[in-house]
Amino acid sequence: MTVKAYGAHAGDQPLEAMEIIRRAPGAHDVQIDIAYCGVCHSDLHQVRSEWAGTLYPCVPGHEIVGRVSTVGADVSGFKAGDLVGVGCIVDSCQHCEDCNEGLENYCDHMVGTYNGPTPDAPGHTLGGYSRQIVVHERYVLRIRHSEAQLAAVAPLLCAGITTYSPLRHWKVGPGHKVGVVGIGGLGHMGIKLAHAMGAHVVAFTTSESKREAALALGANDVVVSRNADEMAAHAKSFDFILNTVAAPHDLNAFFALLKRDGTMTLVGAPATPHPSPQVFSLIMKRRSLAGSLIGGIPETQEMLDFCAEHGIVADIEMIRADEINEAYERMLKGDVKYRFVIDNASLAA
Amino acid sequence: MTVKAYGAHAGDQPLEAMEIIRRAPGAHDVQIDIAYCGVCHSDLHQVRSEWAGTLYPCVPGHEIVGRVSTVGADVSGFKAGDLVGVGCIVDSCQHCEDCNEGLENYCDHMVGTYNGPTPDAPGHTLGGYSRQIVVHERYVLRIRHSEAQLAAVAPLLCAGITTYSPLRHWKVGPGHKVGVVGIGGLGHMGIKLAHAMGAHVVAFTTSESKREAALALGANDVVVSRNADEMAAHAKSFDFILNTVAAPHDLNAFFALLKRDGTMTLVGAPATPHPSPQVFSLIMKRRSLAGSLIGGIPETQEMLDFCAEHGIVADIEMIRADEINEAYERMLKGDVKYRFVIDNASLAA
Repeated sequence: MTVKAYGAHAGDQPLEAMEIIRRAPGAHDVQIDIAYCGVCHSDLHQVRSEWAGTLYPCVPGHEIVGRVSTVGADVSGFKAGDLVGVGCIVDSCQHCEDCNEGLENYCDHMVGTYNGPTPDAPGHTLGGYSRQIVVHERYVLRIRHSEAQLAAVAPLLCAGITTYSPLRHWKVGPGHKVGVVGIGGLGHMGIKLAHAMGAHVVAFTTSESKREAALALGANDVVVSRNADEMAAHAKSFDFILNTVAAPHDLNAFFALLKRDGTMTLVGAPATPHPSPQVFSLIMKRRSLAGSLIGGIPETQEMLDFCAEHGIVADIEMIRADEINEAYERMLKGDVKYRFVIDNASLAA
Repeated sequence: MTVKAYGAHAGDQPLEAMEIIRRAPGAHDVQIDIAYCGVCHSDLHQVRSEWAGTLYPCVPGHEIVGRVSTVGADVSGFKAGDLVGVGCIVDSCQHCEDCNEGLENYCDHMVGTYNGPTPDAPGHTLGGYSRQIVVHERYVLRIRHSEAQLAAVAPLLCAGITTYSPLRHWKVGPGHKVGVVGIGGLGHMGIKLAHAMGAHVVAFTTSESKREAALALGANDVVVSRNADEMAAHAKSFDFILNTVAAPHDLNAFFALLKRDGTMTLVGAPATPHPSPQVFSLIMKRRSLAGSLIGGIPETQEMLDFCAEHGIVADIEMIRADEINEAYERMLKGDVKYRFVIDNASLAA
């Protein structure tokens, strides 16, 4: 099947319209007409070859929502017409300890939705900046939101699960004081989710201008992290801090805000390391620094159901596919509230 | 009470014999004739003013064992003649959340056994390189080992509890694969304790020459960490790594050995930070880097009882007080297996 897509032929070239091939659905495959695809910062890194190993042509996109068009003979969980999503993962070994626990995201053979190894042409996976995709049913998620919310559901498939998974893993809930560092694509979801989980949420931003917006997202309080007095007022008070900032920054300033036994979890990976954290910051209160990567398939379904139940979607700005290069430039300036989403119907033109 | 001691009058001077004043025991105090005092690397840092804020005269020593000579009127838990120990803590606020949970080591007002604030002369605490000490009963530990073992029990009060506490907190036990990095004063205790807790213990050393010794201490396996092949053979296999090395080193090499959800806990604090760890090392397997500081008083008692039950003591080399300056030089070269202990009777001469 030939499918219209948008991607790049090299790291130094803009994205452009192209045609790609999708496999015919196998027995366990679900074929999806993609309605919308969110635009993640990872898309930009990969397509511009800022991470190692980008394969071309590169079609990014791993925040995919749409409707099932066909299913393979052995698929029982989905049928044509279902609203579904696909996130960052389209395959894994399916038999390791991680896979068996539903943590396919930690499988050593996890296959990303783009730039991952596949027997399909052209030998690497091609993502959601395209009209259709064919995915093994294990990696397809059911969407219970209304169709009117569908575009704003797309970012849940990466930004949503990447923040939901650590909040759940570190047992965030009522009675907890939780910090969310960075108010961007991930951070704005972290605020909404932690709030819905019942925590007292404090948003950290370097920008005074984001104060009102963070409160509107559900933060109980906002701290401008450049302001030492504001930071000091929260010393040793947090149970958990979710740090979504991918730019290198001083982690010690946030360690100082954790209670004894508190954890700060990083979900953003900077291209160059953060300044080295002070060991004393960890030792003095038995604090932890952790990392978390996306989330497993079962917990992605759990997250989608949680969001449907709580009326949570992302705040988005819709774009046409041919606006993607401009959108990347705006993302680099932080000029988006809070996630671009491609209207994939614009690919058909 | 005038007491013979050994300490320094300035950071650039050797330790020498001196006399200090101990308070008369208050209602809740226990007065102890010190039999032995272990020599911790912290002693050297503090007395040589390598850490900020050393107050002089400085009498180090926080691995104290001896016999009760007198108790205050309201002391019910101890009586003259009891074998007791004192570790790193001689006071704390006694009413904060940490103190209430028996984690006095994390109290913001924890008072160290030396160089801590006290109303007693000379205004700061003076440690165990002395003939007697007077300590509030809350911070006095009962020793159930035999008197013949007493000298080798002394290092349990710091090196023992500093390794026992994180091993217990991170629930090390049968079925766990545990690494202990560094085979010195702390590390040799970590190996003994993790082994006694039933874990599979792998010792990491930079020195081929320590292989046999580590096995003798109870390690199931020894890895020379400079050997990349040996390291790679253990990739992604550890539940927990206890890192006792205070010198800056590459943490990533050890992160790579942790399973998903594994934790490496640092108990040594380098004077300059470790090279900054790679965030991807944490994110890819939801790993954690943590710190741990000594241990609380109840768990110190638990550790002493555990050691008495399992016949665990430190491996020591006994010295006279007037050999301490030479012992420091040997410590700096790693020339001790594995802890110097001062025979405090040598102070009486």
